[in-house]
Amino acid sequence: MVGICTKMKKLANDDHRRLLHSFKVGIALTLVSTLYYVTPIFKGFGSSTIWAVLTVVLVMEFTVGGTLTKGLNRAMATLLAVASAFGAHHVAILTGGKGEVILLGIFIFLIAVVATFLRFIPVIKARYDYGVLIFMLTFSLVAVSSFRNHETFMLAYKRLMTIAIGVAIALLVSVLVFPIWAGEDLHLLTATNLERLAGFLEGFGAEYFGEKVKHDKIKSKALLQTYKSVLNTKATEDSLANLGRLEPRHGRFRFRHPWKQYQKIGSLCRRCAYLVEALSSYIIRSESQAASELENNTRIRDACMDISKESRSAIKVLASSVKTMTTLSDSKNHMTAAAEAAKSLKMTLSEEGLLIREALHIATIVSLLLEIVSCAQDIEVAIEELAKLAGFEISSDQGNDGLKEKEKSVSDHVELEGISIVVLE
Amino acid sequence: MVGICTKMKKLANDDHRRLLHSFKVGIALTLVSTLYYVTPIFKGFGSSTIWAVLTVVLVMEFTVGGTLTKGLNRAMATLLAVASAFGAHHVAILTGGKGEVILLGIFIFLIAVVATFLRFIPVIKARYDYGVLIFMLTFSLVAVSSFRNHETFMLAYKRLMTIAIGVAIALLVSVLVFPIWAGEDLHLLTATNLERLAGFLEGFGAEYFGEKVKHDKIKSKALLQTYKSVLNTKATEDSLANLGRLEPRHGRFRFRHPWKQYQKIGSLCRRCAYLVEALSSYIIRSESQAASELENNTRIRDACMDISKESRSAIKVLASSVKTMTTLSDSKNHMTAAAEAAKSLKMTLSEEGLLIREALHIATIVSLLLEIVSCAQDIEVAIEELAKLAGFEISSDQGNDGLKEKEKSVSDHVELEGISIVVLE
Repeated sequence: MVGICTKMKKLANDDHRRLLHSFKVGIALTLVSTLYYVTPIFKGFGSSTIWAVLTVVLVMEFTVGGTLTKGLNRAMATLLAVASAFGAHHVAILTGGKGEVILLGIFIFLIAVVATFLRFIPVIKARYDYGVLIFMLTFSLVAVSSFRNHETFMLAYKRLMTIAIGVAIALLVSVLVFPIWAGEDLHLLTATNLERLAGFLEGFGAEYFGEKVKHDKIKSKALLQTYKSVLNTKATEDSLANLGRLEPRHGRFRFRHPWKQYQKIGSLCRRCAYLVEALSSYIIRSESQAASELENNTRIRDACMDISKESRSAIKVLASSVKTMTTLSDSKNHMTAAAEAAKSLKMTLSEEGLLIREALHIATIVSLLLEIVSCAQDIEVAIEELAKLAGFEISSDQGNDGLKEKEKSVSDHVELEGISIVVLE
Repeated sequence: MVGICTKMKKLANDDHRRLLHSFKVGIALTLVSTLYYVTPIFKGFGSSTIWAVLTVVLVMEFTVGGTLTKGLNRAMATLLAVASAFGAHHVAILTGGKGEVILLGIFIFLIAVVATFLRFIPVIKARYDYGVLIFMLTFSLVAVSSFRNHETFMLAYKRLMTIAIGVAIALLVSVLVFPIWAGEDLHLLTATNLERLAGFLEGFGAEYFGEKVKHDKIKSKALLQTYKSVLNTKATEDSLANLGRLEPRHGRFRFRHPWKQYQKIGSLCRRCAYLVEALSSYIIRSESQAASELENNTRIRDACMDISKESRSAIKVLASSVKTMTTLSDSKNHMTAAAEAAKSLKMTLSEEGLLIREALHIATIVSLLLEIVSCAQDIEVAIEELAKLAGFEISSDQGNDGLKEKEKSVSDHVELEGISIVVLE
């Protein structure tokens, strides 16, 4: 119990807007419930009023864009579905008797099949998923209720009206009470991702090329781990960009703000994070070797230090440029400095006689290839574990000394690990 | 119109189960509608029957695990919410008169705030999100209807019963008509991801180290691009593993199949894909240089070829081991062969006098660092584009010749590109 409370407190502290959103939903729901009790708006609606309550709960999303998307989807889909259902009903009654019911059943079946299939189309899934669902749902509701002629018209009318009221309340609360904008969220996420990449370069430079290098601690440094969250931001970014499209002008973001460009920047940030991941996994595996070599090469170390420092500064300036929406000339200065540092590193390398064209090129490819082999070995071990846990069958062409095979594989692993270290020394 | 049809045909051909699922939803919905018309099950339920239709549409998910999760969430949450709402109602009527309404309003507000906040907790978001939503919704519905004493008990009872019927129909159709299992999907996704990694290594080996190397075409080879879809599978895998947990024994997967191990393998596959991405982006940028060097070093080229071939074969065997759920000894042979190839590469390097300890190590770090710098430059260009599109303000400390700055930045970019190529030559 105490654990849950601590967790929730942390969640609220990490992002105050979560608590804010919770209160907003509370306000909207209490509002619609009170309207039901106090005012005459809902008079004559009877039990249909529940649609308004339901709509508020279902449509209230964290961001204005989310509420807008869901609200519009719900309202438009209901309208379309009611119209189509009436059309279907009118076609059906032409046949009369049993034929009417069968025809309506066929309509429901066809609509369900087509609508469900449409939801697999990526563009529709991203933007109109909820609308297609509600269309299918409302069409069936109206068609089904017309089976028994339960005042079909009134049902449809009430559903439309109550849903409109629900959407209106959800939207008003969402926009008027401390609005949370999807676009702004995407904007801040982009700046945060850049800061995390800069954070890695800063920590990496200091830890790895700094004066007092303690390589055994690189693994555990929190600063060097924050970039990992950049690796998996694609889904969040795509969804925020989609929701942001619909949001009206707010703060310094106009209606047609270039949200697509944020996705482009996001994909570049991820590419950078993949490189950082490769660099970091290479360094962690070869820590002790690299350490001693760099200690002997203060000039190379200093040049690497400069490169990481300057690119870190450049990215940091870019992050604050995005955050404050101002163009800063500083980033260019730092980029130039990084270029200078790269030039000076090249000089150092030639002076020390270390620059052998082939070696440098081949070394990079070989190192990465060996990293991939080593990763493949980790995958093998994990799959062996899975085979044990899930009780994989032993293939007929395996021979009968499985245990021996296993022992062999373990020694192979150690051997290759040894080899790759030797090669990379 | 023709375009949409072609797209839909492609979607259906890519995965036949999509069409299957659409028909299943059609069947379930027609079934519940027909039940409503034909049988006496729903007699006396009046307009509440729509809850059953609604439940079928909302609960039918692509996989059995999805339908099970949503169905259980919906049924349990409704039960709990009805019980809580009755409790709240009984507490509220003790106060009587206006106090009752105010107290119920407070209850609704508190439930909405707490429930909405709970949905931010990751574990709850992953597994019980829909349940918490339905709890909040049903609690409000029952509490609101008790405002006017509209046969609250009957409303709750009907809602419970119709939802139970809806969930039962959705589950029966989901399990009995061509079931699609989330667990099996995760299983196949893991095998496919491994195959994609093997596909890259195969194409990479043949294209880059093969006899007839055409480096200018590496970029456009489709085979070398398939690994990219491995980079962003985390969300899908996590969701499938969550849904798989609930599924009963099916085929060769028992109830407590080690789905977590699949997530572990998935994260290793992604790590491998990050390395592949780093390797591939390095090669694409330095194609022509690397090409000529490797042509002069047939022995190194052959060794690299062997390494990629053997790790590719090992991963391919692992993929089919997962797919067929059999342990195959072949993967170990290929891993050993990859280790042998690595050993022989090391020999070749020493014989040719190319193995300089420092150079190899430093080269890798320097190359990756320079890749990061170059990626940072791409980010800078993208952010400059954003600044233009979104109309960023010009910072006061920029000076007043923005155009000159821009020109300078372009030439910097070219310059650094030049330098990094020189360094890496």
